[in-house]
Amino acid sequence: AIVESLMTYISREQPLAGKSLVITAGPTRESLDPVRFISNHSSGKMGFAIAQQALALGAKVTLVAGPVNLPTPVGASRINVESADQMLEAVMSQVANSDIFIATAAVADYRASDIADNKIKKNADTLTLTFVKNPDILKTVAGLPNPPFCVGFAAESQNVEAYAQKKLADKKLDMIAANDITRAGLGFNSDANALHVFWKDGSVELPPQPKTELALALLNLINERYQLQHS
Amino acid sequence: AIVESLMTYISREQPLAGKSLVITAGPTRESLDPVRFISNHSSGKMGFAIAQQALALGAKVTLVAGPVNLPTPVGASRINVESADQMLEAVMSQVANSDIFIATAAVADYRASDIADNKIKKNADTLTLTFVKNPDILKTVAGLPNPPFCVGFAAESQNVEAYAQKKLADKKLDMIAANDITRAGLGFNSDANALHVFWKDGSVELPPQPKTELALALLNLINERYQLQHS
Repeated sequence: AIVESLMTYISREQPLAGKSLVITAGPTRESLDPVRFISNHSSGKMGFAIAQQALALGAKVTLVAGPVNLPTPVGASRINVESADQMLEAVMSQVANSDIFIATAAVADYRASDIADNKIKKNADTLTLTFVKNPDILKTVAGLPNPPFCVGFAAESQNVEAYAQKKLADKKLDMIAANDITRAGLGFNSDANALHVFWKDGSVELPPQPKTELALALLNLINERYQLQHS
Repeated sequence: AIVESLMTYISREQPLAGKSLVITAGPTRESLDPVRFISNHSSGKMGFAIAQQALALGAKVTLVAGPVNLPTPVGASRINVESADQMLEAVMSQVANSDIFIATAAVADYRASDIADNKIKKNADTLTLTFVKNPDILKTVAGLPNPPFCVGFAAESQNVEAYAQKKLADKKLDMIAANDITRAGLGFNSDANALHVFWKDGSVELPPQPKTELALALLNLINERYQLQHS
């Protein structure tokens, strides 16, 4: 009876106990030369909030973080990276034995085709740079022979649902959380967000709320779908 | 005698009393679309250190800062900007009545010729972007009919002295402080730096030291040249 009630306690309070999560967060930076880079406005707040809540739910958490100014949640192991290539390498070194992979990072889609060894001088009136596609970290993980439960994020400025559904199918994800970056006061660099979460045969809207609460709601959704898949 | 010794005290301890300084600091960010931008590794530490020391030397300080994670030195008025265009506008609104202009900001030399209204989709395997030159803030200020004493910075990865001398002459600056960004542990994002400072008929090397001390040494040099010009 003691064991039973303990199990009930654990399963209610720490539903992710024994689960290993890899979470990516923040932007990546792609160098153009020794001083310049391309990046994006991702603050990393959503990924760090998910990491913190996952730890509270009992999970083992590895946080692969781009350049952000956020403290490491107590108990998480953190790997800092700059570029998409570095993030892929860090993720692949961690993901093999993980149960759930949550890709919140805003990975740069492109990097410069050549990184200049020296600072590009501003002699010309115009400058043309060519970019090549970065590796798709989420698709790479989801395409592994025995992939973890894969959750993607889609930050879009238009046709949010259509792009999210396409990404879910194209990348063979288990779940995708979409947000509309044009909604005022939400998303990038904000402390609040709203998510429209899709999976193969369902969806749910998580209304605007602080990212910490949103993270918990999302983790409960993830756990629900994960348990169904593994039952 | 009291007035005299007070004047001596002020002139020795607060040599910049009554002087108005405008200082730019940090990187600028140039948008590519609603989420992506080009920037650089400038931390803003050098500019903020100069602002702090200038305040201690009695100056009135306006700090025009790009996106950095640094607290405002007590007593400085701070204007936050993102792009080079915004920095130019802020500087021009402040510089008319200033005595000394110190441009430490790493202003992006180029910005995208068009800023996409919506997030650029990664359909193509390669992406070509065209950039146009940003306004040269320092040259614009130095070219005013009655310019303040203008101090530039040159962060270079090669031919440091030659580029600095060229910049001094081309932009008609009063002084330029050059540093070699390839020297380990110095410059961008570091707390220490070394500067090679040039003016029309002289130069001095300020050896590696904490940016706070380097800022004081540079301000003393600036004040010396400024006093000579105005005596």
